[in-house]
Amino acid sequence: MDAITRIDRSLAQGLTLASGKGSPPLLTKAMRYAVFPGGARIRPRLCIAVARACAEDNARLSSAAAAAIEMLHCASLVHDDLPCFDDAATRRGRPSVHKAFGERIAVLTGDALIALAFQALAESAETAPQRLGMLIGIVARAIGAPNGIIAGQAWECEAQIALAHYQRAKTGALFAAATSAGACAAGHESTAWHELGERIGEAYQIADDIRDVVSNEQELGKPTGRDQALGRPNAVHRLGIGSAVERLEELVKSAIEVIPACPGAADLRAHILGEASRLLPRELARPAA
Amino acid sequence: MDAITRIDRSLAQGLTLASGKGSPPLLTKAMRYAVFPGGARIRPRLCIAVARACAEDNARLSSAAAAAIEMLHCASLVHDDLPCFDDAATRRGRPSVHKAFGERIAVLTGDALIALAFQALAESAETAPQRLGMLIGIVARAIGAPNGIIAGQAWECEAQIALAHYQRAKTGALFAAATSAGACAAGHESTAWHELGERIGEAYQIADDIRDVVSNEQELGKPTGRDQALGRPNAVHRLGIGSAVERLEELVKSAIEVIPACPGAADLRAHILGEASRLLPRELARPAA
Repeated sequence: MDAITRIDRSLAQGLTLASGKGSPPLLTKAMRYAVFPGGARIRPRLCIAVARACAEDNARLSSAAAAAIEMLHCASLVHDDLPCFDDAATRRGRPSVHKAFGERIAVLTGDALIALAFQALAESAETAPQRLGMLIGIVARAIGAPNGIIAGQAWECEAQIALAHYQRAKTGALFAAATSAGACAAGHESTAWHELGERIGEAYQIADDIRDVVSNEQELGKPTGRDQALGRPNAVHRLGIGSAVERLEELVKSAIEVIPACPGAADLRAHILGEASRLLPRELARPAA
Repeated sequence: MDAITRIDRSLAQGLTLASGKGSPPLLTKAMRYAVFPGGARIRPRLCIAVARACAEDNARLSSAAAAAIEMLHCASLVHDDLPCFDDAATRRGRPSVHKAFGERIAVLTGDALIALAFQALAESAETAPQRLGMLIGIVARAIGAPNGIIAGQAWECEAQIALAHYQRAKTGALFAAATSAGACAAGHESTAWHELGERIGEAYQIADDIRDVVSNEQELGKPTGRDQALGRPNAVHRLGIGSAVERLEELVKSAIEVIPACPGAADLRAHILGEASRLLPRELARPAA
């Protein structure tokens, strides 16, 4: 089964846990809307690629870990789009959750997706309970304080941003969770996999900064030029477009170099290079090294 | 060690996980502000009372389960107080989190406390990994959809409220998690303990409805008369004050009757009656039966 199918099935199974008898209809609908149809599913696909590279022995668990990471990513998008943050009217080419369902349901959708991520992960670990504690820790740290995506978002509320902390938390954390959780779900020691995710996350952040500057809204499915409008740090503003592209390419190269020894290292390398080649808008992309 | 000390220590240890190097100062401060000083800690004290009644063999785990439930309760208060919901300026006698720290930090504080609840619980289950999956499921279901407190809050966004679902979800769910998690953390089968929590939760909801009508803001530490102002269901409006008090007393009695067989049933009964005697404003309270 291809990775996208595994991820979408695991997400759908998770959403089933959150619906059914007694469920408030708007919340149920909004949770599904926030998760389907997805974006590139880049984090959960990375998680599954790592699990496969580690010769996964429990595909249900690695799919659930991937789906949990995607649910947490979707939850963060819903909350980031709220009027008090980015006030974004569109996401993935259609109205953001608060535009479609109202602000109250948007707050609750994010909250419920966070809870569901942990619940679905726990349900899927029945056959490997000794891996659950580590997996919960990996994904919880990736979203919470001090170093997860929520903490990253909170840096935007400070008078002075600690730039390195901000970026590592806001983007790197969930990518690092994707690699670490993929390894952990496959029964491998996970800390060795953290650095790979961090580097890919940093590359992705720079690609995101580049797209915010050079893409248009139709291409991107969400408003562009938001970093400048909201006074947020952006690598293109800091380095210029040429140096930003170079930095991205260096990061991808350096990521490849820190792949831990594992049975499927060659396939994983190919996966990462393939993903990287799609990170840039077409007019800036060069063939992968 | 008394229950409040155990709960507050476990909460403080949890908050330590979320602070430290790289932590955004406002978020860290707001998370602590949302949790300390606490209210009556009624849910985590119930959790510990049940764990003790079950002759707990892992006090660290039952304290962590109690603290996780309290963190999730605090998170829900922070989000319920937001301008788009109750727009409450005060909570526990001082400014609500969004009044003290701004709306953005309030959203993130709720999110981060949800993540922390699961993280701290997982860390504390190292010595009993086979209980973790069940515990995560109990607390996640108590807050998420379809039957948890977030779903309860979401009913307020529907044109027609399903009253029974609404109340069971909005208040009962976290009380049922308190009794179930207390039993589970002590290594007991937990489903038998659900009904006890539901009944106590329903009693507590009625007491809350009564206080919303008859207390004043100073006594309660938060605005009163909110149910009427926000068009929310309230047992006193439905039944009248006398019948609401009677219903509360019946519920407490019926809760006592469903305590499952356990070594410390007598002490648990005394705990519940003691708590119940404090549920009503002084002028309405009668001695416990």
